[in-house]
Amino acid sequence: MTRLPIQIKLTDSKKEKPNPEKLIFGKSFTDHMFVADYEEGKGWHSHRIVPYAPITLDPAALVFHYGQTVFEGLKAYRSADGTVRLFRPEENMKRMNVSLDRLCMPRFDEEAALHALTQLIQIEKDWIPTLEGTSLYIRPFIIANEAFLGVAPAKKYQFMIILSPVGSYYKEGIHPIRILVENEFVRAVKGGTGGAKTAGNYASGLKAQEVADQQGYSQVLWLDGVERKYVEEVGSMNIFFKIDGEIVTPAINGSILEGITRKSILQLLRHWNIPVAERQIAMDEIREAYEEGKLEEVFGTGTAAVISPVGELNWGGYKMIINNGETGPVANRLFNTLTNIQNGKEDDPFDWVMELKSELVKLA
Amino acid sequence: MTRLPIQIKLTDSKKEKPNPEKLIFGKSFTDHMFVADYEEGKGWHSHRIVPYAPITLDPAALVFHYGQTVFEGLKAYRSADGTVRLFRPEENMKRMNVSLDRLCMPRFDEEAALHALTQLIQIEKDWIPTLEGTSLYIRPFIIANEAFLGVAPAKKYQFMIILSPVGSYYKEGIHPIRILVENEFVRAVKGGTGGAKTAGNYASGLKAQEVADQQGYSQVLWLDGVERKYVEEVGSMNIFFKIDGEIVTPAINGSILEGITRKSILQLLRHWNIPVAERQIAMDEIREAYEEGKLEEVFGTGTAAVISPVGELNWGGYKMIINNGETGPVANRLFNTLTNIQNGKEDDPFDWVMELKSELVKLA
Ligand SMILES: Cc1ncc(COP(=O)(O)O)c(C=O)c1O
Ligand SMILES: Cc1ncc(COP(=O)(O)O)c(C=O)c1O
Repeated sequence: MTRLPIQIKLTDSKKEKPNPEKLIFGKSFTDHMFVADYEEGKGWHSHRIVPYAPITLDPAALVFHYGQTVFEGLKAYRSADGTVRLFRPEENMKRMNVSLDRLCMPRFDEEAALHALTQLIQIEKDWIPTLEGTSLYIRPFIIANEAFLGVAPAKKYQFMIILSPVGSYYKEGIHPIRILVENEFVRAVKGGTGGAKTAGNYASGLKAQEVADQQGYSQVLWLDGVERKYVEEVGSMNIFFKIDGEIVTPAINGSILEGITRKSILQLLRHWNIPVAERQIAMDEIREAYEEGKLEEVFGTGTAAVISPVGELNWGGYKMIINNGETGPVANRLFNTLTNIQNGKEDDPFDWVMELKSELVKLA
Repeated sequence: MTRLPIQIKLTDSKKEKPNPEKLIFGKSFTDHMFVADYEEGKGWHSHRIVPYAPITLDPAALVFHYGQTVFEGLKAYRSADGTVRLFRPEENMKRMNVSLDRLCMPRFDEEAALHALTQLIQIEKDWIPTLEGTSLYIRPFIIANEAFLGVAPAKKYQFMIILSPVGSYYKEGIHPIRILVENEFVRAVKGGTGGAKTAGNYASGLKAQEVADQQGYSQVLWLDGVERKYVEEVGSMNIFFKIDGEIVTPAINGSILEGITRKSILQLLRHWNIPVAERQIAMDEIREAYEEGKLEEVFGTGTAAVISPVGELNWGGYKMIINNGETGPVANRLFNTLTNIQNGKEDDPFDWVMELKSELVKLA
């Protein structure tokens, strides 16, 4: 591909960096952002890195009315020696294009997106916190910004990348969370947008989350929208169960998001010769396994939390306490291995990590 | 309620009004807009009418990422004597709050919204075209504008009303349209957001619309997401069938939008003593009625199109030509009655119309 040059305009008033001990997920943003524009007939153009600043949109911009928007989420890690690492960023760029297709939005060249992302991170590398568990959250997103109130794909879009230094996603840390199995609300259904990373999927989940919060649960576990009996995923995590020695997770079926952490975990488990299966999982099966004492572990997986052990599942009042409410050995091993690979403390047998030294490494 | 004062700042450079013969739906906007802000703890405040202008948002504004947004759509009509009419605007404001509840967004007082809307229209009344079939489309909408990348209801919102002079929604005019019954994609499912007017519902429909377009169909007819056999609605219309003398339309079930045109039509039909039923309608039943020669009329209903007769339904390759591809008598009568009531040419037996003379009438 012909890589478009990125115009760079640096800020002349750098912000104060937040206290790395007190980072709140998604609250503070770095000094710069990447922006590119799309126009029908012209394609993506005007790739630029500019000071982080508010953007201006016509009130009739399509994104406000008909929700054409796609996003991604990944992290950059910095180790003591200054090396910056990205975890499988090319997978995010690939998934971004899958989402863009589903939303009838123009694809963004994956290599160009990676180039933009690494350039921006080079500029902002001092923003990557080094404290254990912290990282720089990367949020690429595309919005339809054409001013037109018609229900049709827009002719104009904006692609942006913003960066936010983050601590742990869950306030509870790596401690197990309590999850409510959702029986009333549905996140996504076969034929819908559940497999894409688009705003509407998250808006629709807020109501269920609100109900869960009120009952003291930190997340909901979504069931399928058709039969309301098969497990799908958690708010922003895929879900895994260890049943009688085997690790199972719902198969990719069009209505759940194909997590990159999920994919990596499946690879790791197979590498470790731990039996694993991707298949349909009914809540009845989970309950039965629990009653027989075979529900050994439950954990969520995602970029934000990496691994989030589940200590309790509440299914319509039936409470399952998993592994005495403690983090299980598989969740623990996965968490340590993944975070060690991400931080460069452990070997990277699958070539997952992209290192950014002072110059671009994998990309150059 | 205590009506908050509306600060008014008029523009000093009025735009040129578009040619009323060449209006394109949702392309041009008037000189002013209404804006109000919400902050947790403070509620809705700073109600104002200001020159129509781009708005400024942080790139991390929640609406871009997690899609918390709600909108409404209604029209103002102006007759030759200068009277401005709104059609059941209080119904839109009521529905807006139903949508806001579903999306975990703060309600906007219905009377205050109506007041804002009528004030804005008073100021912009010269923008309401008078040509047959034209009107001023009114788009109230609310977006989450807090800069925070957390999947949780925002603490800050903006409510806006923008206005657009419009001609007919469908380029084909009142002529029957061709509709493709959608078998692959799903718009909404029980437990989801289908009953709310929120952006994500429309984004998810674009892909199916694209496929329909390519096959020469102007709209898709959505089926239910669970069994894929019951009729739901069309892109931005509810749907009615005349089968063997009876008018039937899908019952409100949580996954379709409760149209105000739909509601009004049901009232009119009952008033005319035409048999009508709101119930579940299977595609098999439609096909059977067609084969027996009993599928007499099909039409869509919505603010944009008012009544849109359907001349052809294609269900997986099985083509049903309805009423020889011509507008049927019930659709015709409904169209004429509704548009005449809206334009003040006919009696308004249900007190649907709100007249805005030089002063506010119903509201004052
Ligand atoms: C709905 C949903 N499921 C699963 C995931 C996990 O995906 P990943 O592992 O790529 O972060 C995410 C978060 O990114 C998500 O938003
Ligand atoms: C999905 C959907 N269904 C139905 C309708 C019809 O509703 P109304 O008659 O209130 O315009 C609309 C349009 O407003 C809509 O967007």
